[in-house]
Amino acid sequence: MAAALTLARRAAGSSSPNPNVGCILVREGRVVGRGWTGPGGRPHAEAQALAAAGAQAAGATAYVTLEPCAHVSPRGPACAQLLVEARIAEAVVAMPDPDPRTAGRGIARLRAAGIAVVEGVMRAAAEAELAGFIQRATRALPELTLKLGLSLDGRIALADGQSQWITGETARAFGHLERARADAVVVGRGTFAADSPRLDVRLPGWRGHQPARVVVGHGAAPEGWETVTDIEGLLALARTRQWLRLLVEGGGTLAGSLLAADLVDRLVLLRAPILLGEGLGLAGFAATDLAAAHGRWRRVHTRLLGRDLLEILVRTR
Amino acid sequence: MAAALTLARRAAGSSSPNPNVGCILVREGRVVGRGWTGPGGRPHAEAQALAAAGAQAAGATAYVTLEPCAHVSPRGPACAQLLVEARIAEAVVAMPDPDPRTAGRGIARLRAAGIAVVEGVMRAAAEAELAGFIQRATRALPELTLKLGLSLDGRIALADGQSQWITGETARAFGHLERARADAVVVGRGTFAADSPRLDVRLPGWRGHQPARVVVGHGAAPEGWETVTDIEGLLALARTRQWLRLLVEGGGTLAGSLLAADLVDRLVLLRAPILLGEGLGLAGFAATDLAAAHGRWRRVHTRLLGRDLLEILVRTR
Repeated sequence: MAAALTLARRAAGSSSPNPNVGCILVREGRVVGRGWTGPGGRPHAEAQALAAAGAQAAGATAYVTLEPCAHVSPRGPACAQLLVEARIAEAVVAMPDPDPRTAGRGIARLRAAGIAVVEGVMRAAAEAELAGFIQRATRALPELTLKLGLSLDGRIALADGQSQWITGETARAFGHLERARADAVVVGRGTFAADSPRLDVRLPGWRGHQPARVVVGHGAAPEGWETVTDIEGLLALARTRQWLRLLVEGGGTLAGSLLAADLVDRLVLLRAPILLGEGLGLAGFAATDLAAAHGRWRRVHTRLLGRDLLEILVRTR
Repeated sequence: MAAALTLARRAAGSSSPNPNVGCILVREGRVVGRGWTGPGGRPHAEAQALAAAGAQAAGATAYVTLEPCAHVSPRGPACAQLLVEARIAEAVVAMPDPDPRTAGRGIARLRAAGIAVVEGVMRAAAEAELAGFIQRATRALPELTLKLGLSLDGRIALADGQSQWITGETARAFGHLERARADAVVVGRGTFAADSPRLDVRLPGWRGHQPARVVVGHGAAPEGWETVTDIEGLLALARTRQWLRLLVEGGGTLAGSLLAADLVDRLVLLRAPILLGEGLGLAGFAATDLAAAHGRWRRVHTRLLGRDLLEILVRTR
């Protein structure tokens, strides 16, 4: 399942409107097929893995990071049906599909065909990978990551707005990886005006997915970019486009508003070993009670990237 | 030498006005004596190790973290002379003594008596341990550590001054260890008024050194505490008392003034996984150039303490 999750990650950002799923078919101890969700959501991971396995799928065990879909769509057949037809012997499934059109019916279909199903293997990891998909299905909200490059004292820019560069090259490359996993990259109007960011994925050799680019606030934007006037507009656009993952890269006012509205699911903080003193930081929200501020964020990753320190935290409630 | 440095650390904070030094005597592969600087500076580490070894010191190798002193003081004999009289065979010395009364004369005395001397073993680690002693000898300044408990966004208190508690129990216990290593613990008037801190070392079973307690700013302080009106007063007091290590625990105004005056040698940052938004942070200084802000601090230690993240940085120039 860990290998299937790694495959799923390949499709992060590019699979929308569908979730990014990975599937591995194993027969007699050998991998006979591998698949992950294609660009734009098709083919599904299971269909791709079955195509690779061909006749060898019969009797195989399928490891799949999300319950196979049970609903026939105009875009393709139901994966549960494909697995039944391929006569796999067993399915190992990380998590149920929160889509009400499947929601257990995929696993029921497999079992009805005599296929043994093991559920919940590495469920927490699968749910973390599909946080945006789950949240879209349950709350009509994408997963929102706030990425900030900051100083030791929490500043994201000098008082005059200068912020290039607080973090070093390695940390910035990591930022590009985050962009590659997002459906859209978002900045506030002030950051757009101050930095003229390109917001694209610039990594050596990268030929994959490029996220949509969104500016929040009033004013013009370059050809091909999206503009919305406020956070409500951003969320409406995300719903229309069926985005699963948003990456917000600042500035302090937009970040503060999103935090105040409790819309940030994940923090990616890249902290440089510098002190900036009185400069720009998060604006527009203020904790009023220390006890209540605790327990809202859980560190899931801490690591040095060059001279900078990466911290990833997820919201706990 | 690593073991001798560990012994030296036992005397950190309590050895003033003398440097905290460690000494180990090894004869035929066995440790025959160990010593570290006593409270208030006497006995010296070498004298203590020689006393433990007795006649077994003859022919031994002495590992000592600082060049043995060459000057006879009213408080005791010169260690170089004691080592000669004990007829050690060899001395391994981490760093020269910056005190002009010794400054090479200790090693010369050993060599003149036919003792082989190896210099510079683990010199960088010894110099880091004795940074305050070196700085006092060379610039008449103590080593100044700024310890702050902060949020992810760099706040040290809510807007109303509330800061108890930002960090958790483990991080606070680490703060007490830092106090135990300091000659004096210092806070600004605002923090003193807001928090009524005790500034003593409170660790289970601790019966060692308690640092002096200093408030910077105008106003009264508890019996036994020191008060100074400003940073100049603090430095003058440190010179008078011959302190080697100051630990400043805030608040933002004092910390900002010390940083603006470039008097902070070491940063101990304990970062809680919380966001506080618009609250109190470092005040009274502001970087004006990002390029110049880089390269001033070097991370020497990063580690999780409970839910909090400890970062220790030292000034590079």
